[in-house]
Amino acid sequence: MTFEEFQNYIKNEKQPINCPVSRTLELLSGKWTSRVIYELEKSEQLRFGQLKKRLDVITNTMLSATLKVLEEQGIVERKQYNEVPLRVEYSLTEAGKAMITIFYEMAKWGSTYLSDKK
Amino acid sequence: MTFEEFQNYIKNEKQPINCPVSRTLELLSGKWTSRVIYELEKSEQLRFGQLKKRLDVITNTMLSATLKVLEEQGIVERKQYNEVPLRVEYSLTEAGKAMITIFYEMAKWGSTYLSDKK
Repeated sequence: MTFEEFQNYIKNEKQPINCPVSRTLELLSGKWTSRVIYELEKSEQLRFGQLKKRLDVITNTMLSATLKVLEEQGIVERKQYNEVPLRVEYSLTEAGKAMITIFYEMAKWGSTYLSDKK
Repeated sequence: MTFEEFQNYIKNEKQPINCPVSRTLELLSGKWTSRVIYELEKSEQLRFGQLKKRLDVITNTMLSATLKVLEEQGIVERKQYNEVPLRVEYSLTEAGKAMITIFYEMAKWGSTYLSDKK
């Protein structure tokens, strides 16, 4: 799909339920979802505690719930190493890694339009 | 910023508060924010009631609050026509319209990775 095709598509799109943009937006709409993906994009793999530290104010419950949803959706992979103490690491799947292009567009947009604010 | 520069940037980025991706994510993290922008991207301008209808389950209070935040952030423009009855239309500013590239990446991602689900 080229950008021009996309522009035509959104003007004529009548089925928001099947629309790939709406579905991606819905997927990213959890308060912490995109932040978790972005942190994993930056660090490749992280343990629960490391991830929590980077997200600062997130609670354990919220982080567990967010990771569970992302695992179910095939975006995050949970890898358990049977060591003592038990080691669990989270990383992105191929689908999760592919989201970097969305973040790249956000970076370009943010650098252009948010530069004078905050 | 090229994509390669961006990849290096996120690996080394140490100041999440000033990071344009984090700030854009924060801005889009409201439950309805990105949906409202996307509907305006599709329709150019909409009245309050039209927008509400397209978002289906949103309440008046939530839609008003979302539009207010987007106006303050310079993404949505509210235009009031002094007719009887009063006509108010919402549309995207230049900054808002520029977000289409983010949605385009979501469309490509969604078409590739969400195709078999739901």
